[in-house]
Amino acid sequence: MSVGIVTAQSRTFESGIRLDSGRLLAPITLVYETYGHLNASRSNAILVEHAWTGDAHLAGKHREEDTKPGWWDAIVGPGRLLDTDRYFVICSNVIGSCHGSTGPTSINPKTGKRYNLAFPVITVRDMVRAQKLLIDALGIEKLLCVMGGSMGGMQALEWATQHPGSVASAIMLATTPRPSPQAISLNAVARWAIFNDPTWRKGEYKHNPKDGLALARGIGHITFLSDESMNTKFGRRFSAKDGQFDFFGQFEVERYLNYNGYNFVDRFDANSFLYLAKALDLYDVALGYESLAEAFAPVAAPVQFFAFTSDWLYPAYQTEEMVECLRGLGKPVEYHLITSAYGHDAFLLEHETFTPLVRDFFARVEQSGAL
Amino acid sequence: MSVGIVTAQSRTFESGIRLDSGRLLAPITLVYETYGHLNASRSNAILVEHAWTGDAHLAGKHREEDTKPGWWDAIVGPGRLLDTDRYFVICSNVIGSCHGSTGPTSINPKTGKRYNLAFPVITVRDMVRAQKLLIDALGIEKLLCVMGGSMGGMQALEWATQHPGSVASAIMLATTPRPSPQAISLNAVARWAIFNDPTWRKGEYKHNPKDGLALARGIGHITFLSDESMNTKFGRRFSAKDGQFDFFGQFEVERYLNYNGYNFVDRFDANSFLYLAKALDLYDVALGYESLAEAFAPVAAPVQFFAFTSDWLYPAYQTEEMVECLRGLGKPVEYHLITSAYGHDAFLLEHETFTPLVRDFFARVEQSGAL
Repeated sequence: MSVGIVTAQSRTFESGIRLDSGRLLAPITLVYETYGHLNASRSNAILVEHAWTGDAHLAGKHREEDTKPGWWDAIVGPGRLLDTDRYFVICSNVIGSCHGSTGPTSINPKTGKRYNLAFPVITVRDMVRAQKLLIDALGIEKLLCVMGGSMGGMQALEWATQHPGSVASAIMLATTPRPSPQAISLNAVARWAIFNDPTWRKGEYKHNPKDGLALARGIGHITFLSDESMNTKFGRRFSAKDGQFDFFGQFEVERYLNYNGYNFVDRFDANSFLYLAKALDLYDVALGYESLAEAFAPVAAPVQFFAFTSDWLYPAYQTEEMVECLRGLGKPVEYHLITSAYGHDAFLLEHETFTPLVRDFFARVEQSGAL
Repeated sequence: MSVGIVTAQSRTFESGIRLDSGRLLAPITLVYETYGHLNASRSNAILVEHAWTGDAHLAGKHREEDTKPGWWDAIVGPGRLLDTDRYFVICSNVIGSCHGSTGPTSINPKTGKRYNLAFPVITVRDMVRAQKLLIDALGIEKLLCVMGGSMGGMQALEWATQHPGSVASAIMLATTPRPSPQAISLNAVARWAIFNDPTWRKGEYKHNPKDGLALARGIGHITFLSDESMNTKFGRRFSAKDGQFDFFGQFEVERYLNYNGYNFVDRFDANSFLYLAKALDLYDVALGYESLAEAFAPVAAPVQFFAFTSDWLYPAYQTEEMVECLRGLGKPVEYHLITSAYGHDAFLLEHETFTPLVRDFFARVEQSGAL
């Protein structure tokens, strides 16, 4: 069942946070949504982390007339995996984003104007530092679970390693301890597409630089799909509108990337896209440690990992490196490699496959009395 | 041994060719180089086909002071795989290119100006139609071998299927019967990068649109390498010149793509890049046939295929589809899957691995008296 109509909330933390870069970001506003009710012992809170271009609107609708529910509605609601009759589910927009939390589109208190490129470079660790303020403010000492895919998985990893006392379990889907140089390269050319757009003006635009941002999204979109899913969905079909020998004639897959790229311009800010791409590329769970094992040493909570066979952005072997390291440390770790054709996007689409596995994991976590 | 100093030649065919699109391209000039000597029976000619941004300068140097030899110099020369003491080796620049053969930078006889986008869309089959004029003009009835990688492999496939009486053998490396929608998508975003460059002006530029073309090349470059080769070559090293938290700070791999992208602008024309990208995407060895088996039915020559484990642009399974089809038809086909970390570029770099296998293949072809 759907959670129904929901309303976004926000909190502002005047003192902000000290970032990995050494800079201070203050104040910080976080936009978030919650579903279900926090129990008396404050022990039923699940924090869901969103990916790159996601937002706090995880489930339900803001208004009856909304055509689409929140981005992971399929798993949140009464009777669903994140059962709002039992759990208090929280989703908070990350800093750096353009969906309400403090980011490059926010007003810089020093100038009274939008930050734009005056916004500091942030890391995934910084995103979680900011979230920690929110979880503290909600009076939650320990989250029952933190869960996320892709950049959301990186945030869950940060909770498990940097705030081990604050999480009773963590679930990471389609993520990586650090993006490979190939993944960095694909973000690099996406950035380059925006830098090339003369209307970007080094971030000082009035209107989103549409051609550059649409192309950047097109590049990203390719990395979210797979060879196999593109074969199934588009094959080599040529657009019915075009002649095969027209210079500007398009394959259907080409038209699809184009169409979705330009749609993206209406819902995401180019500077936010750049800051979050940077945070993704800089991500390294072992940043500041000698080794992955050292970074994972503090992990206390049971953790569950999912990787997907056709995910070539953050391939399974990268998850498996973490699983093996945690096993070597004797940590309680569970790993599932899901056969899927959906590529990186599988973490959003394969919920029917992972739901029973996550339910079992929750049952074990709750039985173990980890809270 | 090197072939030493070589000189490019050219031939013009006034009557041109009728293209797959139905349009006439005339006149056609082809620039080519040859190495070694054609024997009296004209039976020792090997045609080497270049890839997307390659040219006719296969081996040797044009001038003593050239810093680099031709693009596949390692396999051409006295005592080398394509032994110029025994073979007459030919390499011809494809139509559509900007390295001497007729392409969008050539003068359109109808207007007296550069073709630019008035140049017709061409296919790989058209490239080979044009080459056939050259091979005929050289008085060669049957090539001992036609050999190429990537787009060069597509051309070799066209010789084997469309001109089966004209080739005694064919060798295809790192190629595909038809690029996948994923490969098409990656070319599509490269095209888009050029279209987005305001200096491209729908092909009517005075100076190559550098930002768009450099980015397009950067995207292509990613597809030529592999996850593994990038890990080995760059890892996640950050440029020593930049701070990790600088907005414009670059990873080394990012700087490398940038640097090489802008270098590419000096040596390749943006419109040619677009026309050849289109030819790659449109490529389908079975174009005009009901099936791959029907397209392969005329194949008469022994064929040898090489695929490379880390090639994700034209993955091995695509070559294997052809190998299985030819085996099913009872054709003489040989296949080698080479373990390599070099990605698609492996076909240029793994010559030490494939040289003995090609030598054996040549020996069998010559013993069989296929000529």
